Amino acid sequence: MAHNLSDTIALLERTPAALNALLRDLPDSWTKRNEGEGTFTVPDVVGHLIYADKEDWLPRARRILEHGESKPFDAFDRWGHVEACRGKSLPQLLEEFTRIRAVCLQELRSLKLQPDQLEQSGCHPSLGRVKLSELLATWAAHDLTHMHQISRIMAASYRDEVGPFAAFLGVLKCNGHGG
Amino acid sequence: MAHNLSDTIALLERTPAALNALLRDLPDSWTKRNEGEGTFTVPDVVGHLIYADKEDWLPRARRILEHGESKPFDAFDRWGHVEACRGKSLPQLLEEFTRIRAVCLQELRSLKLQPDQLEQSGCHPSLGRVKLSELLATWAAHDLTHMHQISRIMAASYRDEVGPFAAFLGVLKCNGHGG
Repeated sequence: MAHNLSDTIALLERTPAALNALLRDLPDSWTKRNEGEGTFTVPDVVGHLIYADKEDWLPRARRILEHGESKPFDAFDRWGHVEACRGKSLPQLLEEFTRIRAVCLQELRSLKLQPDQLEQSGCHPSLGRVKLSELLATWAAHDLTHMHQISRIMAASYRDEVGPFAAFLGVLKCNGHGG
Repeated sequence: MAHNLSDTIALLERTPAALNALLRDLPDSWTKRNEGEGTFTVPDVVGHLIYADKEDWLPRARRILEHGESKPFDAFDRWGHVEACRGKSLPQLLEEFTRIRAVCLQELRSLKLQPDQLEQSGCHPSLGRVKLSELLATWAAHDLTHMHQISRIMAASYRDEVGPFAAFLGVLKCNGHGG
């Protein structure tokens, strides 16, 4: 199926409001946990989404448009958000995510990408050749994988509280798929 | 950890707005798919949440308060929403979910449940003895398991579009955990 950029943008523009509605002023008991050493809390996830909007998606899109496969993407630091987010509350992070996402989508639209540009390829440091259309589709799917993660982190807070009902709750059986 | 009813309510009252922000007017390409025969589309999930609010959580809570373990819960029909939702658009379902959830939370608050009541038990048709506190905690975790499911259903729409990036997207590896 051909990648539909307007569908991608439709999802990308909804994520900040969805996370804001779910998470703003939610008691810390839902959001402060991570899933063990080396894993994210909910504020980490929002920080990671901010950092990826700044450092990953559009910088890599520009790299493809300017250099094709001749200049590989810079590596992305999965923990790059930590320094940038230090001392920020979850509501502050949600506001920052809303702002940066709006700026990014304004820039994405201003590129007025044409079908032949979406077919251009770049060089990913570990995946090799990837198309611009695949990069942009992944931006949207990446939002969804982190919503998946947020629902899992939060549900785990209630693992004991649900008692025998745990047997019916698929989210409590999710191990993150190494993702 | 003791079940904190106010934390449960805090989550329950945010779910309709979160789903509304994510899903309203999103292109059908994101929401019309299911995961194969006998699985839910996104509108099915919202319909199921509505039906569970009407038929499951508070009716079972009242059963515990009125009959304890002497009268088991009525069975819950996982496909009970189908007839009730026929012909309704996703925006209509989101509005209905917002309304029914507000009514349910008003009733839940009006019960002014005390710690000894939360410890009372009922009889689940397949799980056996369950506490009121476990039932109410599960109401919130059930919202989260269905957000987990929605993110998975939607991400699957982009399985081909993301190309080699699929290797990094945990949500695409999720099989629903039989939940």
